[in-house]
Amino acid sequence: MQLMVLNGPNLNLLGSREPQVYGHTTLAQIMQALIDEAAPLGYTIVPYQSNHEGDLVDKVQLAKHEKYSGIIINPGGYTHTSVALRDAISAVDLPTVEVHLSNIHAREEFRHFSYIAPVALGQITGFGAMGYSLALRALTAYLDNRI
Amino acid sequence: MQLMVLNGPNLNLLGSREPQVYGHTTLAQIMQALIDEAAPLGYTIVPYQSNHEGDLVDKVQLAKHEKYSGIIINPGGYTHTSVALRDAISAVDLPTVEVHLSNIHAREEFRHFSYIAPVALGQITGFGAMGYSLALRALTAYLDNRI
Amino acid sequence: MQLMVLNGPNLNLLGSREPQVYGHTTLAQIMQALIDEAAPLGYTIVPYQSNHEGDLVDKVQLAKHEKYSGIIINPGGYTHTSVALRDAISAVDLPTVEVHLSNIHAREEFRHFSYIAPVALGQITGFGAMGYSLALRALTAYLDNRI
Amino acid sequence: MQLMVLNGPNLNLLGSREPQVYGHTTLAQIMQALIDEAAPLGYTIVPYQSNHEGDLVDKVQLAKHEKYSGIIINPGGYTHTSVALRDAISAVDLPTVEVHLSNIHAREEFRHFSYIAPVALGQITGFGAMGYSLALRALTAYLDNRI
Amino acid sequence: MQLMVLNGPNLNLLGSREPQVYGHTTLAQIMQALIDEAAPLGYTIVPYQSNHEGDLVDKVQLAKHEKYSGIIINPGGYTHTSVALRDAISAVDLPTVEVHLSNIHAREEFRHFSYIAPVALGQITGFGAMGYSLALRALTAYLDNRI
Amino acid sequence: MQLMVLNGPNLNLLGSREPQVYGHTTLAQIMQALIDEAAPLGYTIVPYQSNHEGDLVDKVQLAKHEKYSGIIINPGGYTHTSVALRDAISAVDLPTVEVHLSNIHAREEFRHFSYIAPVALGQITGFGAMGYSLALRALTAYLDNRI
Amino acid sequence: MQLMVLNGPNLNLLGSREPQVYGHTTLAQIMQALIDEAAPLGYTIVPYQSNHEGDLVDKVQLAKHEKYSGIIINPGGYTHTSVALRDAISAVDLPTVEVHLSNIHAREEFRHFSYIAPVALGQITGFGAMGYSLALRALTAYLDNRI
Amino acid sequence: MQLMVLNGPNLNLLGSREPQVYGHTTLAQIMQALIDEAAPLGYTIVPYQSNHEGDLVDKVQLAKHEKYSGIIINPGGYTHTSVALRDAISAVDLPTVEVHLSNIHAREEFRHFSYIAPVALGQITGFGAMGYSLALRALTAYLDNRI
Amino acid sequence: MQLMVLNGPNLNLLGSREPQVYGHTTLAQIMQALIDEAAPLGYTIVPYQSNHEGDLVDKVQLAKHEKYSGIIINPGGYTHTSVALRDAISAVDLPTVEVHLSNIHAREEFRHFSYIAPVALGQITGFGAMGYSLALRALTAYLDNRI
Amino acid sequence: MQLMVLNGPNLNLLGSREPQVYGHTTLAQIMQALIDEAAPLGYTIVPYQSNHEGDLVDKVQLAKHEKYSGIIINPGGYTHTSVALRDAISAVDLPTVEVHLSNIHAREEFRHFSYIAPVALGQITGFGAMGYSLALRALTAYLDNRI
Amino acid sequence: MQLMVLNGPNLNLLGSREPQVYGHTTLAQIMQALIDEAAPLGYTIVPYQSNHEGDLVDKVQLAKHEKYSGIIINPGGYTHTSVALRDAISAVDLPTVEVHLSNIHAREEFRHFSYIAPVALGQITGFGAMGYSLALRALTAYLDNRI
Amino acid sequence: MQLMVLNGPNLNLLGSREPQVYGHTTLAQIMQALIDEAAPLGYTIVPYQSNHEGDLVDKVQLAKHEKYSGIIINPGGYTHTSVALRDAISAVDLPTVEVHLSNIHAREEFRHFSYIAPVALGQITGFGAMGYSLALRALTAYLDNRI
Repeated sequence: MQLMVLNGPNLNLLGSREPQVYGHTTLAQIMQALIDEAAPLGYTIVPYQSNHEGDLVDKVQLAKHEKYSGIIINPGGYTHTSVALRDAISAVDLPTVEVHLSNIHAREEFRHFSYIAPVALGQITGFGAMGYSLALRALTAYLDNRI
Repeated sequence: MQLMVLNGPNLNLLGSREPQVYGHTTLAQIMQALIDEAAPLGYTIVPYQSNHEGDLVDKVQLAKHEKYSGIIINPGGYTHTSVALRDAISAVDLPTVEVHLSNIHAREEFRHFSYIAPVALGQITGFGAMGYSLALRALTAYLDNRI
Repeated sequence: MQLMVLNGPNLNLLGSREPQVYGHTTLAQIMQALIDEAAPLGYTIVPYQSNHEGDLVDKVQLAKHEKYSGIIINPGGYTHTSVALRDAISAVDLPTVEVHLSNIHAREEFRHFSYIAPVALGQITGFGAMGYSLALRALTAYLDNRI
Repeated sequence: MQLMVLNGPNLNLLGSREPQVYGHTTLAQIMQALIDEAAPLGYTIVPYQSNHEGDLVDKVQLAKHEKYSGIIINPGGYTHTSVALRDAISAVDLPTVEVHLSNIHAREEFRHFSYIAPVALGQITGFGAMGYSLALRALTAYLDNRI
Repeated sequence: MQLMVLNGPNLNLLGSREPQVYGHTTLAQIMQALIDEAAPLGYTIVPYQSNHEGDLVDKVQLAKHEKYSGIIINPGGYTHTSVALRDAISAVDLPTVEVHLSNIHAREEFRHFSYIAPVALGQITGFGAMGYSLALRALTAYLDNRI
Repeated sequence: MQLMVLNGPNLNLLGSREPQVYGHTTLAQIMQALIDEAAPLGYTIVPYQSNHEGDLVDKVQLAKHEKYSGIIINPGGYTHTSVALRDAISAVDLPTVEVHLSNIHAREEFRHFSYIAPVALGQITGFGAMGYSLALRALTAYLDNRI
Repeated sequence: MQLMVLNGPNLNLLGSREPQVYGHTTLAQIMQALIDEAAPLGYTIVPYQSNHEGDLVDKVQLAKHEKYSGIIINPGGYTHTSVALRDAISAVDLPTVEVHLSNIHAREEFRHFSYIAPVALGQITGFGAMGYSLALRALTAYLDNRI
Repeated sequence: MQLMVLNGPNLNLLGSREPQVYGHTTLAQIMQALIDEAAPLGYTIVPYQSNHEGDLVDKVQLAKHEKYSGIIINPGGYTHTSVALRDAISAVDLPTVEVHLSNIHAREEFRHFSYIAPVALGQITGFGAMGYSLALRALTAYLDNRI
Repeated sequence: MQLMVLNGPNLNLLGSREPQVYGHTTLAQIMQALIDEAAPLGYTIVPYQSNHEGDLVDKVQLAKHEKYSGIIINPGGYTHTSVALRDAISAVDLPTVEVHLSNIHAREEFRHFSYIAPVALGQITGFGAMGYSLALRALTAYLDNRI
Repeated sequence: MQLMVLNGPNLNLLGSREPQVYGHTTLAQIMQALIDEAAPLGYTIVPYQSNHEGDLVDKVQLAKHEKYSGIIINPGGYTHTSVALRDAISAVDLPTVEVHLSNIHAREEFRHFSYIAPVALGQITGFGAMGYSLALRALTAYLDNRI
Repeated sequence: MQLMVLNGPNLNLLGSREPQVYGHTTLAQIMQALIDEAAPLGYTIVPYQSNHEGDLVDKVQLAKHEKYSGIIINPGGYTHTSVALRDAISAVDLPTVEVHLSNIHAREEFRHFSYIAPVALGQITGFGAMGYSLALRALTAYLDNRI
Repeated sequence: MQLMVLNGPNLNLLGSREPQVYGHTTLAQIMQALIDEAAPLGYTIVPYQSNHEGDLVDKVQLAKHEKYSGIIINPGGYTHTSVALRDAISAVDLPTVEVHLSNIHAREEFRHFSYIAPVALGQITGFGAMGYSLALRALTAYLDNRI
């Protein structure tokens, strides 16, 4: 079973940007760790990152077309502005978990609202890179009918 | 005379997504029917679909450059979030008709507002694929100085 | 099959008011053209105009009682203020198409909201008198199960 | 002693509209039951229904003129939009009880606000036709100085 | 030259309602005084009162049709709720003066907003019956090109 | 059949507080009258009052556990602030009638909104102690399938 | 009896600024005409203009101290921003009439609200210089107990 | 190392309430599973549930006093209304993870806002009972300096 | 004469929590100092602290019952959320002074609003523990008819 | 050490305005009493009053220049409208206490917000002239490092 | 050609206030540098600073009267509160450039809105004293018809 | 030293679109002029335009990667809708100046808000193509430590 892991704008900067704050781990390393963690659970992780809203919409549609079982998405800045991405997730009707590295509810007011959350299974915020691991646990449990 | 028909994000899923709700007609079939309907009226329809906001802006600009007579646009999710698309339509100053398959005024509150409508000739919502046909009737009547 | 065409406040002024803007066509002429257009489609149009909210509510109720097949309504100023009219349309449960001559989404903010739209099949705005013709096409297609 | 019972727009449809939801009891039957219930309490009920805001205002004024003792009113859709009706009730200064068949606080947001409530004795919502009976009990108790 | 003087809902109660507050002068007496005051200025006053929004719209339209020179209107409760009345005044394009007996800006918040004011010449509030006299002075000065 | 009657904060002060306004009747006397009124209808009333939000939540839960047939609740100040109480009522899924002594819609703006109303059968406001009696009538009618 | 006539910021520009719009009449001329109109009514007009909020507050206080009978005020831009001026008028408790040359209700939204209106007798807007004359009529009628 | 797991109002109903929706697992069973999961990680879980806001505040304070290492909290309805609980968490300055069984961002608007989230490490919503397990993983990783 | 001094949630943490910010003085010490300061003024201070909204409501009611002369209250987090507490203070009609250690007007927006302030004599914010002393001065001056 | 005591618009009317409400004490008397109270504490009070926003800004700046130790300010109506005054206080960075005679939180909504409070040490409202004395106590305690 | 350079409240503190933040350059020095920069461009700079809103209005009017060619204005705190200043600029109809030392869009929300900007040519924010130089470049280019 | 100059959607139309309004200068010409102006200052300008939000985000990231010294950006329509672009600018932490040709504060309300401004050095609006030149002056001064 395949899971798509989508990363939105500016997440490609992880590791190189402000390492004293976000650490030295790159997105590639986080994705590799997730691949490694998913394998023994019987899931293949296919990661993708783009700064383009349209690319993310394309990929969500592809997930349906290529029969992925579910999506983990960190929509970055598009969380708060993209109806197109929400509609794509809603249309493909795949179980989707939303992840944010930072605690968006503790930041600027415009980050408290997510267009994605109402069409996702659930949302995980504030635990850094570990959020992906938690999302994997949640999504696979859902797919294995354990929740 | 040429008319550009622009379709925004997720409209490429028509026919394959939730056919029990949206029917089995694909966007390609809807566009073909529109082409067939326009021909005897003396208009050539050039359809285009993209999930990318920038692509839609590019196309609107192209419509001006290539001397299209008007635009029919279903902006999908960008209806509610794209100032860029609004500015493009406003800038090219071509008569534009906005179409929505669903009745956006009966859905979530954020779908009630359209950035596009104030710079369009008018808006048609809620009649499914037939909306394109109505838009064609309206736009050609406008271009033929019948309204 | 009969269709009721309701026109709200001030629409009786069409043709005589600001003809340089709205043209010289009167509401009676528009309605006659609609009657003529509907006949070959197998529909009888019964037009009605009133400046009174209550009259419009009465007529909507009558449409149900007298077994009309559908309603085309241009609620004029009551679009934005009449819960009574909305409730009437909702209660009689006849397919209803909302028409506006002008592009209400390009005018004052209070005209952007419609109490009627959420209980209508759809809304057509901005195409002048042609809007009635489009509404007829949409409504009869719906009644004939073509949409 | 006479009590006026006013029913606003669309309440005349009771019994014939969606009987599986609202039951088969007509407004006439509800009013008759109220008349019967009021008689032994020493009160004459005079019911009136109109879809016209102005008619309801006229009647409220008449209640004062003809020396009614109080008013029971179900303003229907005018609850949320009629300052005129509010002013009439306020002007005649007769004890008034507001009734709604449905629980308006559980419906669309615009139904939560009532122009009438602040000038009424009180409001009863959500108990269907029985609301009139409760209103009668409340109003007569008030008039008999029991509350 | 004829001037129409329109009075909205509940203004017919003047004189009989709360005379200790509003005085014992009836609307008929106020209108008669206005007629008397207008005559030497060369104007005929035609007063009208209705509790019905539609009646007021009808009358505004009639003012145009019967070639009145201007309108003085106290829209009562419809001030705050009637787009239909606003549109009528806007459509007939006659100079219109808005009058309120009370100081609406010192009352409930919903009375601060007027749909009529933006399409009127001006607004006079808070001077009781004298407001009509001031409106007459203002309107005739305007018509006589003195302002 | 048992009915729980819950009274929220400060209702224990009835009778001793501002008797010239609220009268000399205590909450105990009101509850006793309600017990007496319910008996011939075949219902046992169990009254409870607390100033503690948590106690009221506990009691609502207990009502389910001890197989009460319904709840009458005057949530006092918690009406406007308690999601916990709303959730409890929603969870136990017992028919619930909300009562307020005063006309909350005529008081401060923050009292117009009720967290409880949307999960209650209906709401009765403004009739003083008689509100409990009306609520009893409504609730027993509902339980006896008379509404 | 003395009346103070206060003019706020930028009103000193009348006559010299955009004469094609506001006419060639200066504030001094308007004030002189008002003086002339007031004399036969038995009132002395003392005009004052300032661009300074504090000066206007000082003058309002002085009006009380020097036993003026009333105030006519065109607060200009301070209408919408000055609590200090409102408090001064409220404190001296002299009958005050608010005048605006333009129809402030037809201009930018921030001009619709007046801090002054709720503490004034009434407000006159939209009649140009004639507004002062109307205000004089209203204020003297009030002082002479004619309204 | 000890972790406190706090459950707010109505969570004690889990298992017995609407089992077809929430399943048959009780809160006690969920807490036991969490205790079992935490033990091999070297953590002792101390669960607590209360319907009382004050009890939850007391417990948060106690967590500090008794040297707990962190808190997992599902504040239930108090999420949206309790500044007291927020202040307690903020004051004790223990790492805290907020859990919600349901996806609160997909429910009523008032549930989208959390007073707790800005003072928590992060928030996990929508994964049912598994949310506690994810929270445990996140909190222990934080305490072990793995995030 | 007795004065009740009520302290709301989390104030029991004073002295032990963040002493570098709030100092090492405990609430007990602050209360003792207040007792000492009140004695020579002829007042007995009875302090009480609770994290429970209901307890605070109970105590306010008790203050009336036991004939306290006035209340000093620091409602903590309940300041912004408790209608119940406001109603209690309003009901017992004892002079009440509201105190806050911090300057709530300089903190998060939700702390700017107080349900308590409109029913209190006055509010003192921002002076730390000294606020209680100032409140004592104000309340006793009021009770001694010095203000 | 010198303290500046600033009084904003209309405070010069104290004593002469509505003495039955505000008492017969003039601002001069209040200031003298404050001077007398401050002397034994080792502080010289320099009072100033102006109706001019700019004067108050000038004085605040002067306080810095002339090395005052702190400011007590009752900004009157400028409390709610003056960013200039806020910026001045913020710029001079002198400890400042805000005083209001009345309980501004119990008056019109626009008086609940203060531009000054967030840059002041604290705010004292509702205790009449005694507020100055409390402010003196608070400010001197702060300056003497007692709070 | 003369240019007026107006500086609003608190800008006279530049150089002496928080020099570590704002630098040691005084307003006089900034103005002198601007004078020196303008001279070779053929413009005379006349600087003015005031803490008084009315003074700034007076000066703007004077600019017209004395035939200045344009205005550079840093309105300080009056940016966000002065309709009077906006109206003055609008009335004199001189090209005006608005300057702010700090980036007002990155500060408190109330600083994001400017009454002045809509009647200015443009706005320059965030570049410290250099903003005046940029404004000079922009204004002279405009006057020389280079933009 | 290199500076990136980014131009957002529809700016490529400059010169060809509405030349009577925007002039005949193309974006290429404006950029060339900027290159020429920057060279003697020791800066190389690299211009880029795109209608795609994602492209602009990519370029901002590239600016960091390729060690540009700063960014001048005219985000066009994305100014008001792009959190992604804001986050990119914030992440790369390069000094950025925001430019708008038109005075966005004088246009539609939705154009008054900028997501970019709070993370930029400053904003320049309303001076047409000259805005780029001013931005260059500001940015180079900042980089040369002259502001």
